[in-house]
Amino acid sequence: MSIALVILAAGKGTRMNSDQPKVLHQIANAPMLAHAMMSGAALEPARNVVVAGHGFDDVRKSVAEFAPEAQVVLQESQNGTAHAVAAAQEALADFEGDVIVLFGDTPFVRPETLEKMVVARGDNAVVVLGFEAADPGKYGRLVMRGDRLEEIIEYADATDEQRDISFCNSGVILAEKSTLFDLIDAVEANNAQGEYYLPDIVGIARDRGLSVTAVACDEAETLGVNSRAQLAEAEATFQSRARKDLMEMGVTLQQPETVMLSFDTVVGRDTVIEPNVYFGPDVTVESGVHIRAFSHLEGCHVSRGGVVGPYARLRPGAELAEDVRVGNFVEIKNAMIDTGAKVNHLSYVGDASIGAASNIGAGTITCNYDGVMKHKTTIGANAFIGSNTMLVAPVSIGNNAMTGSGSVVTKDVPDDALALARAPQVNKLGLAHKLFEMLKLKKKNMSEKAN
Amino acid sequence: MSIALVILAAGKGTRMNSDQPKVLHQIANAPMLAHAMMSGAALEPARNVVVAGHGFDDVRKSVAEFAPEAQVVLQESQNGTAHAVAAAQEALADFEGDVIVLFGDTPFVRPETLEKMVVARGDNAVVVLGFEAADPGKYGRLVMRGDRLEEIIEYADATDEQRDISFCNSGVILAEKSTLFDLIDAVEANNAQGEYYLPDIVGIARDRGLSVTAVACDEAETLGVNSRAQLAEAEATFQSRARKDLMEMGVTLQQPETVMLSFDTVVGRDTVIEPNVYFGPDVTVESGVHIRAFSHLEGCHVSRGGVVGPYARLRPGAELAEDVRVGNFVEIKNAMIDTGAKVNHLSYVGDASIGAASNIGAGTITCNYDGVMKHKTTIGANAFIGSNTMLVAPVSIGNNAMTGSGSVVTKDVPDDALALARAPQVNKLGLAHKLFEMLKLKKKNMSEKAN
Amino acid sequence: MSIALVILAAGKGTRMNSDQPKVLHQIANAPMLAHAMMSGAALEPARNVVVAGHGFDDVRKSVAEFAPEAQVVLQESQNGTAHAVAAAQEALADFEGDVIVLFGDTPFVRPETLEKMVVARGDNAVVVLGFEAADPGKYGRLVMRGDRLEEIIEYADATDEQRDISFCNSGVILAEKSTLFDLIDAVEANNAQGEYYLPDIVGIARDRGLSVTAVACDEAETLGVNSRAQLAEAEATFQSRARKDLMEMGVTLQQPETVMLSFDTVVGRDTVIEPNVYFGPDVTVESGVHIRAFSHLEGCHVSRGGVVGPYARLRPGAELAEDVRVGNFVEIKNAMIDTGAKVNHLSYVGDASIGAASNIGAGTITCNYDGVMKHKTTIGANAFIGSNTMLVAPVSIGNNAMTGSGSVVTKDVPDDALALARAPQVNKLGLAHKLFEMLKLKKKNMSEKAN
Repeated sequence: MSIALVILAAGKGTRMNSDQPKVLHQIANAPMLAHAMMSGAALEPARNVVVAGHGFDDVRKSVAEFAPEAQVVLQESQNGTAHAVAAAQEALADFEGDVIVLFGDTPFVRPETLEKMVVARGDNAVVVLGFEAADPGKYGRLVMRGDRLEEIIEYADATDEQRDISFCNSGVILAEKSTLFDLIDAVEANNAQGEYYLPDIVGIARDRGLSVTAVACDEAETLGVNSRAQLAEAEATFQSRARKDLMEMGVTLQQPETVMLSFDTVVGRDTVIEPNVYFGPDVTVESGVHIRAFSHLEGCHVSRGGVVGPYARLRPGAELAEDVRVGNFVEIKNAMIDTGAKVNHLSYVGDASIGAASNIGAGTITCNYDGVMKHKTTIGANAFIGSNTMLVAPVSIGNNAMTGSGSVVTKDVPDDALALARAPQVNKLGLAHKLFEMLKLKKKNMSEKAN
Repeated sequence: MSIALVILAAGKGTRMNSDQPKVLHQIANAPMLAHAMMSGAALEPARNVVVAGHGFDDVRKSVAEFAPEAQVVLQESQNGTAHAVAAAQEALADFEGDVIVLFGDTPFVRPETLEKMVVARGDNAVVVLGFEAADPGKYGRLVMRGDRLEEIIEYADATDEQRDISFCNSGVILAEKSTLFDLIDAVEANNAQGEYYLPDIVGIARDRGLSVTAVACDEAETLGVNSRAQLAEAEATFQSRARKDLMEMGVTLQQPETVMLSFDTVVGRDTVIEPNVYFGPDVTVESGVHIRAFSHLEGCHVSRGGVVGPYARLRPGAELAEDVRVGNFVEIKNAMIDTGAKVNHLSYVGDASIGAASNIGAGTITCNYDGVMKHKTTIGANAFIGSNTMLVAPVSIGNNAMTGSGSVVTKDVPDDALALARAPQVNKLGLAHKLFEMLKLKKKNMSEKAN
Repeated sequence: MSIALVILAAGKGTRMNSDQPKVLHQIANAPMLAHAMMSGAALEPARNVVVAGHGFDDVRKSVAEFAPEAQVVLQESQNGTAHAVAAAQEALADFEGDVIVLFGDTPFVRPETLEKMVVARGDNAVVVLGFEAADPGKYGRLVMRGDRLEEIIEYADATDEQRDISFCNSGVILAEKSTLFDLIDAVEANNAQGEYYLPDIVGIARDRGLSVTAVACDEAETLGVNSRAQLAEAEATFQSRARKDLMEMGVTLQQPETVMLSFDTVVGRDTVIEPNVYFGPDVTVESGVHIRAFSHLEGCHVSRGGVVGPYARLRPGAELAEDVRVGNFVEIKNAMIDTGAKVNHLSYVGDASIGAASNIGAGTITCNYDGVMKHKTTIGANAFIGSNTMLVAPVSIGNNAMTGSGSVVTKDVPDDALALARAPQVNKLGLAHKLFEMLKLKKKNMSEKAN
C-alpha cells in the first residue's frame, strides 16, 4: 500500500517567543519538522505534504532545502487539526493509498512505531497512536474495548472513570485516504474553541461501523516542543541517545555530555573524541581518528589515522585524506588535504588543495578573496610552505617546492624551486635602546601635559 | 520609610581554604557580597553599610568598585552577629528609618522577599525572615503564635517539641534603626562561644512588649556558601536560573548547561547561542544574533544580525554594529566595528575603528603597542585590508582603500589608494631540492656523530 | 612482609567493540590498567606482574611506558582467573612474600582498602575483598561465619538462602605466594565453561584448614568497565572525585563539570579555573594562577601569578615562570618563559626561551622546523618582539632588543639593537578604486559567459 505523510506544521508556537515558526527551530542542527519527516521517511512515503500556516514562506523555503520533493500547502486560518489535515486534500487529489498524519513539533516518533501502525492498518480502517502516560494529566484518553478503540475522550468531557485511563492520544493517526477525508468532512466544530478536532474522526468512524484500533509507543516518542526550555530538553534527549549509539558502535567519548552531535553525524570505530567537540551537519569521521578538544567540524570528511585539533575548525568542503594532521587555531574550508599532509598551527587554508606529505608552516594563509571573487591555491606533494607564507590565489606551488617564511607568493612556484619574497634584515645597533628611551620620555611629557 | 542595608561580611570562611575573604569569591563573575547587595538594591536603600573584618582592605577595595556609594566599616574582632551589626551604628548615626540586616555569604535572597518584609514592618517593630526547612537539622527554630514570632530558639537550647518545628531562622532581620540598636545593646554573650547573637533581640523585643513577626521565603533563597564546593553549587544555581530566564525571553540555548552567563548578561530575543559560550561581565547582545560555539565575550556589545565565532573573543570595548561578522581565532578589543564589516579569520583588532562594509583579511594585526604606549588604528568604509597586513598604529586607512597582503603599513593610506609594502618574489629553481638534500645530509652527519 | 602485585589484564573486552585491548582504554588520560597499578602502588610492592593475553604486544608496550619495572607475562589462552594467576607463577619464582591479585579493568580500588587487606592477612592465610551490593544480582556471594569466610558461592550454584546474602565477591584476593599457587594447583575446571576460577581457592583453603577472611570496601571501588558507556561513567566518577578534591584544597572551579583533569593534575590553592579547561597529563599549576576558559594544558608548569588563556595551549615542555601571561590563540611548546614575560595573541613559541619581562607581539612565530630538523630560538630579557615577527631558528635575540613588525629575522640580533626586515610602503593613489572596478567587471564578464 502506498503511503502519504501529512505533517502538520501550521502552529505559531506562542510560547517559543520567536519570530520564527516553531517547527523550524532546530534539534541537532535540523529543523524539528525535518526530524518528524525523517521518522516518516522509514515508511518510504510516495508523497510528503506539509501543512504550514504561521511563517508559511519560511517553512516552504526550509522544506525546499531538506526535502525538495515535499509539497507545502497553506492552512489559511488555524481552525483545529482536522481543518489542518483537510488543507492537504487537494494536494493529494491524485494520490491513492494510506495517509499518516504526523506533527511537526513532535520530532521523536520512532520509525519502528510507524511501521507497527502500518501493520495494524491491515485489519482496521483507522489506526491511532497512543501511549501509556506516567501522568495522564489533561491528555485525551483512548477508550479501548479489547483491540478496538471505542472513542477518544477529551479530558474536559471525560467521566471520572474515563479519567482513570492512562492510555492517551498522541495525535498521530493513519487511515486510507478517502476514508480519512470522508471522516474529516463529518467533523463538527461544536466545542468551546469552535475548532475542528482530528480525534473526533474516531467516534464518527465507529458510528459508521468502521474498525478502529490503537497502537502503543513510549511516552518519550510523543514529546512535543512548546517552549525554548522544552527545545533544549528535546536537544538533550537527542544528544544523549546519539552519544550512546556512538559509544555502542565503538567510539570513545571521553566526556560524552560535552560533545555536540548533529542529526547526521557519522563516526567510525576506535575513533577517540576528546571533550568539547562540536559536530555541525554533514560530518563523516572514519575509524581510528583522534578528534582533540575544542574542535569544530561541519560539512567535512576526516579519513582514517587523522588527528584533528585541539582548536581545529573544519568547514564545509574540508576533505582530509588518511593520516592528515590539522592542529591548533587552523581553519580549513573547501580544501582537499592529501595523505599525511600537516597544517599544524595558526593557518587559514581555503579553496585549496594540498598534496601528500606536504608541510604547511605556522601562520600560512591562502589569500583566496580579492575583494570580489574567490580563487584557488594548489600545492603539490612534499612541499614545504614556510611560516607566515601568504599564498595569493590563484597560485600554484609545485611538488617538492619550498617557500621562505614571511613570503608573499603571487606567482606560481615550479617543482623543486624555492620561492623567496623577503626584505633583507638590518640590525640597527643601539637603536632599540634609544627608541625605548624616546618613547618613555614622550609618555612622560604627555602625562605631564595632561596634569 | 527610608531604608538602610547593613551587610555582614566580616567572616573568614575557613572552609573556603583561601587567602581571599569569603564574600569576595565570585558567583557569575560578581562577588557574593555584590549579589547580596543587588538583592537589597530593590528596596532602593538610602544607605549601604558593609561590615567587614577578615580581609578588610580587599573588601573595601572591591566594594569601592561595584558599589562606590556604600560605606565599609570595620568589625575589629568577630564576636557574633549582634556585635557585627553594632559596628554599623556609628556609620548610621545621621540616618533615620529602617535597617535591614543581610549576609554577604547568602547571595540569593530575592528582592520580592525583602519587599514582603518591608510590608510586614508596617504592623511590627521587628521582622525576621524564616523558611520552611526540608531538613531543619541544627537551624534555629522560629516559635510562632499566629502571626507573632515568640522566640528564636537555638537548636542546642530547644525542647524536643520545639525541635519538631520546621520553620527556621535565615538570620535576615528588619527593624527601625533606634529600636534595632537599643535591642542589640541589651544582647548578652551568655553562651558557650561568648558571642553576641542577633536573634536574641527577638526575645528581648517580646519582653519589652514589642510586636515581632516573621515572613517566609523559599529555603533556596537562604543558601549560604561556606566551601568551594558550595560556591560551585551556588554558581550552578545561578546559571540554571539565568539560562531558564533567557530561554523564556526567547533566546535559544542549544545546550544550556554549557553556556556561562554573568550576573549582568543581556541577550535579545531570537538570538541563538551555540554550546560552550562564555559571557564575562557587561555584555549586551541584541536580537537576532548568532553566537557560535567556543566564543568568549566580555564588556562588549553585539548588534542585531551579527554573527560571532566560533572561537571569537570580544574583549572590553568591542562594539559591533549591525550585521557585523567576527570569525574564528579573532580577538577584538576596544574597537568599533561598523555595519556589515567582516573580520573573519585569525586577527587581532585592538584600539581601532573599522568603517562600514570593510573586509579585514586573515592574519591582520593592529600593532597598537609600541612597548610603552597604545595607539589607535582607523580604517574607513568599504576598505579591503589584505591578509596579514600589519597596521602600525597610529595609522589611518581611507575609505575604499586597499592594502596588499603581507604589507607593514606605517603611513596613512588615502581614500581609494592601494598600499603595498612587499619585497618582490624570486623563484630559485631547483634550490628547494638542494636544500632538502643538504638538510638531510646534515641531520645524518649529526646523528652519526652522536653515536 | 614483601608484596607482589599480580594484575589480570588478558581479557578481550568484546563489548568495548575495539581493536585495542580493554585495559588500555583510558580514564583521565591513563590506561585503566595504570589506575589499577596505581592503587596497588600504595603497598610499595616489590614486584609487579601484569598477566596479558589479548593485545599482548600493545599491553607490554604501554606498561613499559608507565611502569617500566613491571613484568608482563603471557596467558596464552583465557581459561579463567585461576589460570591467569598461574601464568604469573614463573615470573615470581624468586619472590617470597604475599601476592595480591588485582584486575586491570577495575580501576578504582582505594589504596586504603588494600592496606586493610594487608592488615587482615596477619591472622589469615587468604584475604578476599568483598562489598555490600545494593543489588547483588548475579555476583558471587561471600558466605561468612563471624570473621571467617566459609565459601564463595557462584550465583548459579547458590541456594535461595545464599542468594539473600548481599556481601559479594570483588575478585581481589591476597595470600602468601606459595599458599596461593598451591591452592591454585588444586582448582579444577568442573563447570559449564570449563574454566579455572580463582574464587574456588577459598573452599580448597577451608578444606585444608586454612583461615580465610574477607574485608569490605565500597561498591563503587569495585566498578568494572566492560563497554564504552561504562568507560565514560568511570571517567565521570574519576573526574567528579578529582574536582571535589581540588575544591577542598582551595581551588576555585567556576563550573566544575566542564573541567577535564588528568590522573596526575596538580593545582595550587587560590588558583581560579574558568569553565572548559582541559588538563592533559603531567600538568602542574601553582597557587594564585588564573586559568581562563577554553585553555588546553599538557606536560607543562605554570608558576604563581600566571594568567593563561582564554584559548591558550600549553604543550609539553612549556615552563612558565612567575607572573607570565599567555593569551588567546597562543601555542607554547618546549619553551621556558621567564618571569613577567607576555605572549598575548596569536603566536607560536616552540623550542625557545624567552627572557624576563619580554613582550612577544601578536602573530609572532618561532620558525623552529626547517623541513628536516627542529632548531632553537633564544630571546633575552626586556626584549620587544614586534607583531608578526618570524624568528627563523636557530636564532638569538639580545636583551633589550627590538624587532620591527613583519620582520623575518634570520640573523642574531645583539643586545639593544633594532632588527628590521621590511620593504618600504608605497601608496598607489586611486589604484584601489581602479582594482575594485576591474575585478567587478571581470566577475560580470565571467558570469555573462557562464550564462
